[in-house]
Amino acid sequence: MASPFPLPDPMRRALDLARAAQAADEVPIGAVVTLDGQIIGEGENRNRRDKDPTAHAEMVAIRAAAAYLGDFRLTGCDLWVTLEPCPMCAGAISHARIARLYYAASDPKGGAIEQGPRLFTQPQCLHRPEVYGDLAEAEASALLRDFFLARR
Amino acid sequence: MASPFPLPDPMRRALDLARAAQAADEVPIGAVVTLDGQIIGEGENRNRRDKDPTAHAEMVAIRAAAAYLGDFRLTGCDLWVTLEPCPMCAGAISHARIARLYYAASDPKGGAIEQGPRLFTQPQCLHRPEVYGDLAEAEASALLRDFFLARR
Repeated sequence: MASPFPLPDPMRRALDLARAAQAADEVPIGAVVTLDGQIIGEGENRNRRDKDPTAHAEMVAIRAAAAYLGDFRLTGCDLWVTLEPCPMCAGAISHARIARLYYAASDPKGGAIEQGPRLFTQPQCLHRPEVYGDLAEAEASALLRDFFLARR
Repeated sequence: MASPFPLPDPMRRALDLARAAQAADEVPIGAVVTLDGQIIGEGENRNRRDKDPTAHAEMVAIRAAAAYLGDFRLTGCDLWVTLEPCPMCAGAISHARIARLYYAASDPKGGAIEQGPRLFTQPQCLHRPEVYGDLAEAEASALLRDFFLARR
């Protein structure tokens, strides 16, 4: 269901990055990292282009933000991503000490936040961000659905 | 307990990489990727040096092997690492389609294979490698113990 609230700018940007990934024939997922409301890192899925199994949108954005800050901890930073993160990306979010995680659509198939391993609820988890899901479910889901339908 | 069998060469190399990380004041963990018995990617923990929260030994080795093969899938490749992988690295191992995972020591605090989220047993998990743990528990654990004791 569409939210009655306007979408925050960082999520708008993440959705634009998802569309850029789609145009490059990559899985349409985008992510940005913000600090005090400013974007300090961006990423889109680059698995095929970069020939890198770790190049999910979140990973690319986190690495860019860490390079920008010159710090392997992104303390106080927020991550905005168009799809619920997988276990790899959820682990990286925790390692990076991301303060708040916002995502547009849940991912029943591969998400690790509100389903599957629910990584941030594991007793082992050393850092849990605040989580805000389903910010733009319809828009982000439609992007992915169209992409996978076109590939069949 | 020490294994009565000689340690395979890739694990010897992973332990050497762990010692190299230690010498650089990084968490002493090393990893290599092999294909048909040949090392095609190596990594050691580089979080601090690279200012990159994703730069665990496994991630560095997987990215190096993928760059070497020019493919984002490491089908048929094996990963050798000195410590049981965390959720981030376990997720990357699955994404990369690693065939066999060998690790030297279990990690009760942060491991995601035989404890915590046990990622490869999750119904969502799309690719599960064969897993061989505890190949050199004493040697790998001593490296980590000494490192963290020295930092206290």
